[in-house]
Amino acid sequence: MEKLFFASDYMEGAHPAIMRRLEETNLVKSPGYGSDSFSESAREKIRSACRAPEAEVYFLAGGTQANSVVIGTMLRPYQGVLAAETGHVSVHEAGAIEAGGHKVITLPQRDGKLSAQIVRQWTETYLMDENRSHMVMPGLVYISQPTEMGTIYSLEELTGLSRVCREYGIALYADGARLAYELACPEIDVALPDQAVLCDAFYIGGTKCGTLFGEAVVFPKPGTVPHFFTMVKQRGALLAKGRIAGIQFDTLFTDSLYEEIGASAVRIADRIRKALSEKGYDQAFIAPTNQVFPVLTDEQLRRLSEKVEMSFWERTPDGRTIVRLASSWATREEEADALIALL
Amino acid sequence: MEKLFFASDYMEGAHPAIMRRLEETNLVKSPGYGSDSFSESAREKIRSACRAPEAEVYFLAGGTQANSVVIGTMLRPYQGVLAAETGHVSVHEAGAIEAGGHKVITLPQRDGKLSAQIVRQWTETYLMDENRSHMVMPGLVYISQPTEMGTIYSLEELTGLSRVCREYGIALYADGARLAYELACPEIDVALPDQAVLCDAFYIGGTKCGTLFGEAVVFPKPGTVPHFFTMVKQRGALLAKGRIAGIQFDTLFTDSLYEEIGASAVRIADRIRKALSEKGYDQAFIAPTNQVFPVLTDEQLRRLSEKVEMSFWERTPDGRTIVRLASSWATREEEADALIALL
Amino acid sequence: MEKLFFASDYMEGAHPAIMRRLEETNLVKSPGYGSDSFSESAREKIRSACRAPEAEVYFLAGGTQANSVVIGTMLRPYQGVLAAETGHVSVHEAGAIEAGGHKVITLPQRDGKLSAQIVRQWTETYLMDENRSHMVMPGLVYISQPTEMGTIYSLEELTGLSRVCREYGIALYADGARLAYELACPEIDVALPDQAVLCDAFYIGGTKCGTLFGEAVVFPKPGTVPHFFTMVKQRGALLAKGRIAGIQFDTLFTDSLYEEIGASAVRIADRIRKALSEKGYDQAFIAPTNQVFPVLTDEQLRRLSEKVEMSFWERTPDGRTIVRLASSWATREEEADALIALL
Amino acid sequence: MEKLFFASDYMEGAHPAIMRRLEETNLVKSPGYGSDSFSESAREKIRSACRAPEAEVYFLAGGTQANSVVIGTMLRPYQGVLAAETGHVSVHEAGAIEAGGHKVITLPQRDGKLSAQIVRQWTETYLMDENRSHMVMPGLVYISQPTEMGTIYSLEELTGLSRVCREYGIALYADGARLAYELACPEIDVALPDQAVLCDAFYIGGTKCGTLFGEAVVFPKPGTVPHFFTMVKQRGALLAKGRIAGIQFDTLFTDSLYEEIGASAVRIADRIRKALSEKGYDQAFIAPTNQVFPVLTDEQLRRLSEKVEMSFWERTPDGRTIVRLASSWATREEEADALIALL
Repeated sequence: MEKLFFASDYMEGAHPAIMRRLEETNLVKSPGYGSDSFSESAREKIRSACRAPEAEVYFLAGGTQANSVVIGTMLRPYQGVLAAETGHVSVHEAGAIEAGGHKVITLPQRDGKLSAQIVRQWTETYLMDENRSHMVMPGLVYISQPTEMGTIYSLEELTGLSRVCREYGIALYADGARLAYELACPEIDVALPDQAVLCDAFYIGGTKCGTLFGEAVVFPKPGTVPHFFTMVKQRGALLAKGRIAGIQFDTLFTDSLYEEIGASAVRIADRIRKALSEKGYDQAFIAPTNQVFPVLTDEQLRRLSEKVEMSFWERTPDGRTIVRLASSWATREEEADALIALL
Repeated sequence: MEKLFFASDYMEGAHPAIMRRLEETNLVKSPGYGSDSFSESAREKIRSACRAPEAEVYFLAGGTQANSVVIGTMLRPYQGVLAAETGHVSVHEAGAIEAGGHKVITLPQRDGKLSAQIVRQWTETYLMDENRSHMVMPGLVYISQPTEMGTIYSLEELTGLSRVCREYGIALYADGARLAYELACPEIDVALPDQAVLCDAFYIGGTKCGTLFGEAVVFPKPGTVPHFFTMVKQRGALLAKGRIAGIQFDTLFTDSLYEEIGASAVRIADRIRKALSEKGYDQAFIAPTNQVFPVLTDEQLRRLSEKVEMSFWERTPDGRTIVRLASSWATREEEADALIALL
Repeated sequence: MEKLFFASDYMEGAHPAIMRRLEETNLVKSPGYGSDSFSESAREKIRSACRAPEAEVYFLAGGTQANSVVIGTMLRPYQGVLAAETGHVSVHEAGAIEAGGHKVITLPQRDGKLSAQIVRQWTETYLMDENRSHMVMPGLVYISQPTEMGTIYSLEELTGLSRVCREYGIALYADGARLAYELACPEIDVALPDQAVLCDAFYIGGTKCGTLFGEAVVFPKPGTVPHFFTMVKQRGALLAKGRIAGIQFDTLFTDSLYEEIGASAVRIADRIRKALSEKGYDQAFIAPTNQVFPVLTDEQLRRLSEKVEMSFWERTPDGRTIVRLASSWATREEEADALIALL
Repeated sequence: MEKLFFASDYMEGAHPAIMRRLEETNLVKSPGYGSDSFSESAREKIRSACRAPEAEVYFLAGGTQANSVVIGTMLRPYQGVLAAETGHVSVHEAGAIEAGGHKVITLPQRDGKLSAQIVRQWTETYLMDENRSHMVMPGLVYISQPTEMGTIYSLEELTGLSRVCREYGIALYADGARLAYELACPEIDVALPDQAVLCDAFYIGGTKCGTLFGEAVVFPKPGTVPHFFTMVKQRGALLAKGRIAGIQFDTLFTDSLYEEIGASAVRIADRIRKALSEKGYDQAFIAPTNQVFPVLTDEQLRRLSEKVEMSFWERTPDGRTIVRLASSWATREEEADALIALL
């Protein structure tokens, strides 16, 4: 028997609807670099979903690329990024932000989240430091929504962060690698139009939410980064066949596919969380999205590992192991059944 | 009637065989970042095609990205690139090489090509300059094969460049955005194994040769760039679903698809070149690949533009216009017939 | 007998008046980083000499540093520098501008100078290029006044450049490593206040004009580069004992010392130029400043080299050698007498 | 009455012996860029003091510059720096290391010091992380000797760090901005030859130890950084009149001036520390060098501030204030008497 595959959410190709659309349009001729009509249609649908009719939308290939291009072009050389110490830009991008010349200033987090209060406190300490002209100025706050731990910022939390950022002239940017799974959470009270109001930039994840590749960077306010296109090109991030990203996002934002993808994965993750609770497993984070973090004894870990591909997360001080199980648009209910039966 | 589309060679999706293979494998689960079996199979086929069994092969998304990652990681900070003044890195990458910290030193070219003699002469002048420790050291020679003008380096020319480079300890790197169209030229005497022997790095173009996106970077000698993987990640160029590139290149290097793609486009370009000659048109470059460069009078330009999408190249001193017509794997013989009928 | 030393203009310590002032103030205590009263006095005198009462003035250590910090902070990532192919930033700064991420676009020069016409023509070609969003945008024009060949821009020439730059929104920056020697030329019609009106930034050279080290960067319009101080620190260019630069420039701009230094060197260079003419030597450039460029036969070169330290400049096509002789504030009339006697 | 000046150790010009020597040599002509005989003599004396006859020695202008040039040229793009969270490179260099493309990974410290154990633990965690190829590799450990808190690494501590670094192939670099004051501590058991054996690079501070400016970078093993000279030039850090730094370091290393400078300052700091103890003041760090860190009540702070210039360090949780008092070569015993009388 093949192992059950819950190690991550980017292990297949694309959602069948996307494959179908790529196939249908394959021989249509169109100009390059995102100037095609598929990309324009996708941009228009995203603007509409965000209720941000003037937003600028760009399609990049992946998450680290989106983060480093957006952050690198929004900051001036004397500015740095504030991020949770667990943020993707802080630990898992091989120093991409620093390679672009900017310090990532890591702040304490809770469940992967930054609080408005901690950002305010850090910024005020900076502003009162007599030596601040010898220090890196905070230019942007990086959050991930949902976070690397699968947790989500509530509307109140996001509003709080946005307010602090605007008070101090700091940009707010949200990494939405798994955005579909947040938008689909029953308890979430943040919708795309809220993000468009509260953030200066964010990206709508494709790679982990159903596409072959691709992330849609959104600047709600036009002109946020002048000459962004040229800087995308300069950083090697401009897709010659921009249409391939455009077609995929156009499909994601047609007939509510993005919502559907998220909902299916969250429903399955919820079933797994519920089963874990019922069977007495601890869970490391209260994560309502598509990621589940059971805490396993060595015996449980050994037994489960034989039949399930999971991601190692970290060891706990009491000698157990946190693992991550991820569902996606591609996870079938039968796979969840089989997993639950093994718990 | 729709216009005939000869403006470029990356205006459709992917070759149907690639689309088919993506479809077939779509729901297979595999690990990320190029560690999947499709990518490994593709790498193995490329090693075999290059007769370089130890070569390291990496799949990146596009040409500017490949150029800037390879050049940026092969050079030390005190080194620069020598390139033709018409080279893609010199003019059409929005300063990507310089953004990575390195000077592009432009040398005179002929038909888009650098000569061994000019590289030698420049290098010797550098080496004799008393102030050379205040100057940028040549670290790498960039060529495009075929060139931006569609011309190709013969085996003798490439061997000459390689010899000069090795004599002076300079790396030789070939941009193969349109490599399929060179390999398919009847008169070419350079094969992939020759490039693998003569160059320190090169890339095999996908985007302009039949894929949705993707270029295969080849380092014939393993260990050429230690930790290349991490630097690819750092530059935002690591594909999470590396398999999507792997599957495409695996298909290109199965059943001679790459050769077939090149041959079909070159055959059509040859027909167009022949027709131009017969009808008395001048051609700007002697280009045996998939690009054709007729020189048009204003009247010819006006008339042809009504029915054909072409690329503007440049004005000639005598007041005519060079345009570029490109064929590709997707160009049908009927389209060539129609174009020729219009000449 | 010691050889006569005309190889360059930075071979001694500092003008005696500067040494005296450093000595007098040596034990005075003052705060660091340029916030001392000596530096403030120097800034005020420079503002006054430039008739630019709101100018921002910063003291950096050397010319390459001044160029790379000013250019690197004035440009946005998508912009590059236009410079003469003989410009210091183009050839003799080891790729400092590119290390800061920006392309140096080299333009043809005459006697080391760029013309307004060539800048205009290049810029218009760029603006009409359909692919310009894939290219480096011109952000700054770099000139050296006087140039590396000792020539100078007239008020008409400088005004022309300034006009073109402003028309296209390009900054104009003048490298004044040898500014004292220009200001002292009898025929010059450009004074400091003109530069302050026509340029967006320039530096007043110290190292080659009488100080131990140091260049005074002037931004005539305040706020030209926000947070310049922090970026100077970031680039390792902030002097802890900023007063040492401040005291030197305060002395240079007291009792017309800067003019005096220039005048003495130019007078000597003029004597040498006149003697060369009278004795039938060719001169490579019409240079009215402190640099003299005789063209020597091999026999003349051999004979003179025995007794005079000179700089090799370049070989001429007819097999002769251009050398550079430089005078400075430290060159005595007796040394000129001795040199002339040898011609 | 003038206030007593204990705010820092770089508030005057240069030690009188240095001023004298600059004066004496002022009109001697010599070649530029450090190729003069004064610089060569200084390098030779430093090699001798370090008992490292093959060491490469370079003179740079300041500490942030030395740190960013050395670190930036020793690291490869995929590597970062490990530093104490209080390290100068971590907080007070305006992001200079990141501007050069490298992450500063901050580790917990005690009294400003890193321990071998913490470096080992961090490195082993990194090496065991399955995702380490997506992370920044540790390439260099940065320490300051003495530290920003005036504390010093013992021979045992430094040996421990060196051993861990070599075990893992990480370079060890020591920032010696205040090195003279460490070497002069009665209890120190680390001498320059020990540093030369244990570190891969370090700098001997001038600016805070008696010169007008200047730090001497030492690479005990020749060839540590190929083409370092060109990269110094590229980063704008090459002094045209290199002799000015050379003369100053030549003087510092003649007749034990460097030791004398350190000893005088430490003797005075010891007197102040003793007086503080006797009068019942708390001190924040056990610092045996030229910096003293009394903890003051608001009343004491107010009273002392009226007559003494001090540096604010930080508030304590119990509502008192840590201030820093620094002595230097220029502090006279009478000034210490006056300060002690005020305590």
